[in-house]
Amino acid sequence: MSKLEQVQKWTQDNKVDFTYISDPKTIQYLTGFYSDPIERVLALIVFNNQDPFMFAPALEVQAIKETGFPYPVYGYLDHEDPWQLIAQNVFTRIANPREIALEKDQLQVARLEQLQRVFPAAAFNADITSFINELRVIKSADEIEKLKVAGKWADFAFEQSFKAVKAGRTEQEVVAELQYALMKKGIMQMSFDTLVQAGAHAAEPHGATNATKFQTNELVLFDLGTIWDGYISDASRTVALGTPTDKELDMYQVCLEAQLTAQAAVKPGLTAAKLDKIARDVISKAGYGDYFIHRLGHGMGMSEHEFPSIMAGNDMVLKPGMCFSIEPGIYIPDVAGVRIEDCVVVTDTGCEPFTHTSKELTYVG
Amino acid sequence: MSKLEQVQKWTQDNKVDFTYISDPKTIQYLTGFYSDPIERVLALIVFNNQDPFMFAPALEVQAIKETGFPYPVYGYLDHEDPWQLIAQNVFTRIANPREIALEKDQLQVARLEQLQRVFPAAAFNADITSFINELRVIKSADEIEKLKVAGKWADFAFEQSFKAVKAGRTEQEVVAELQYALMKKGIMQMSFDTLVQAGAHAAEPHGATNATKFQTNELVLFDLGTIWDGYISDASRTVALGTPTDKELDMYQVCLEAQLTAQAAVKPGLTAAKLDKIARDVISKAGYGDYFIHRLGHGMGMSEHEFPSIMAGNDMVLKPGMCFSIEPGIYIPDVAGVRIEDCVVVTDTGCEPFTHTSKELTYVG
Repeated sequence: MSKLEQVQKWTQDNKVDFTYISDPKTIQYLTGFYSDPIERVLALIVFNNQDPFMFAPALEVQAIKETGFPYPVYGYLDHEDPWQLIAQNVFTRIANPREIALEKDQLQVARLEQLQRVFPAAAFNADITSFINELRVIKSADEIEKLKVAGKWADFAFEQSFKAVKAGRTEQEVVAELQYALMKKGIMQMSFDTLVQAGAHAAEPHGATNATKFQTNELVLFDLGTIWDGYISDASRTVALGTPTDKELDMYQVCLEAQLTAQAAVKPGLTAAKLDKIARDVISKAGYGDYFIHRLGHGMGMSEHEFPSIMAGNDMVLKPGMCFSIEPGIYIPDVAGVRIEDCVVVTDTGCEPFTHTSKELTYVG
Repeated sequence: MSKLEQVQKWTQDNKVDFTYISDPKTIQYLTGFYSDPIERVLALIVFNNQDPFMFAPALEVQAIKETGFPYPVYGYLDHEDPWQLIAQNVFTRIANPREIALEKDQLQVARLEQLQRVFPAAAFNADITSFINELRVIKSADEIEKLKVAGKWADFAFEQSFKAVKAGRTEQEVVAELQYALMKKGIMQMSFDTLVQAGAHAAEPHGATNATKFQTNELVLFDLGTIWDGYISDASRTVALGTPTDKELDMYQVCLEAQLTAQAAVKPGLTAAKLDKIARDVISKAGYGDYFIHRLGHGMGMSEHEFPSIMAGNDMVLKPGMCFSIEPGIYIPDVAGVRIEDCVVVTDTGCEPFTHTSKELTYVG
């Protein structure tokens, strides 16, 4: 059964007249077509017992058809009311829809109010978000293949960027070199803004790359990823420019042990919370527990914020095909920041990483 | 009155206990702090008669404080329930909130349901979206200054990229060169994926840049923009590689006349719909009306999708300080695409463009 057929079956099983799919990533997952229409309306309408249709801005219609989507595609112009047009197309199929399912995690309140306006007799209780997340959390062989390619390009980016780090250069200059190297190979999009942070700057885990210059004898943190055919990579490495202090070396070794221990512990049946604890215990026992201020990891695939979330409190059981990051970090303000991250796919007996750049401390410069 | 004080006054005037601001761009606009927390929770709670507070992921708290935000900032860890924590902090200020205003254009339905869970006695009728849009639609002198700098970097990008177009090279190679030139100057982010489209490929106005090779004797379409201190530029130019056909030259001249006529017509008092019609009439009279399949323009500032929308049906009256694109286009499938675009700010007597790259047909290669 195709993914789209599974959504149709869910729509039947939940006694819903139709499901209004509006997350661009879900539409990509179900149809292969991706576009972020921003404030315009893009929707996939999946009925319980007849063919679906797509509704899109007029200037996207041709591109949708070119992907081979085999069902009707209706376009609208900017000055038209998309909600009335959606309703008209629904009414030719169902005279009086009573139950409409939504992607509540993604749909804006104002759009729900528009749907309520054009379908005044309908209730909007059903939420397909969890079902879509359950579908997406287990990656197919085809998806894993794409994630592997994206991972190879992240390894290429590390190789290029480690060579570019020199005392006196800026973080931004290194980002320019690594992204240029990727673009010359046709890799045009990063999965998120590339992070290169020098020394104490890396102690701000969500700070941005800036014009900070590298100093001799400090750690440098990289967090980067590429997009390959809609699937991402995401990996972090921390390298040494010159000679780190004993404190920095200790932070590095503890973070590495936490990362390796957690990665070795992954197997079907373990819970996400337990995996987080395995890494956190290593860091806490070494006395750095207060400096590991985020979850161990996040699911990934078409984006870097999918399920499963690898954190305390999440009892989700790991299964083959789940993909997520393992990224312990130690951030000591005004000292340094260390993060080491691979994303992995759970296998029948353990896991396989998508990135293979050495995790032993690499000396650059 | 500061923008934040205006939101507080709106909250008072609308008899709302507090306004829940959740759009990261609105938070940036009101506080100077920007972060897109994706699935995490970032909110600015503005009360009607006491100080606001910010609620954020723990790892963002330090960055918020460093921006000089003078009110409390509460953080939460990934395993905590952010909604309960928001409610606790509200309850220390208001025992029983009855009316809560939202940004309904941005807030997801699932998040409204979480707010309903922790504030079961509250109604969520009020929507501050229109008020925020009205505030944001008139740019201050400070904002216009940033838009001008972003525009200069777009002009720089055109200059660099026109030099890079040669028969046999690919669209992606040109994007690589222009983005590398910008990054070397410290301009790290484009406002959207840079579009370079060769020949008939440009007839797909929302198609993406790919490995299409430039041929001698064709038109090449560029659409690009940079980000400067949170504000964007957005401009399009179409250039000739070799000698265009008479048909292509005609498309170009008609599009240029539409662009210049509309830009010259901008003044306070004109409606957005009238401005769209001025450009559309030029193109329709020349027989290309069916090939101009999008609105004339969009508002811009912190993003390229703000008010006012320059389209049929929008009676919004132009006022000094409004900023938007003027971007007529003619797209003939299997032939060519032409688009010429400047973004402008409305002045007391007309408008000023943010980009100054010549709009006469430029020959490259």
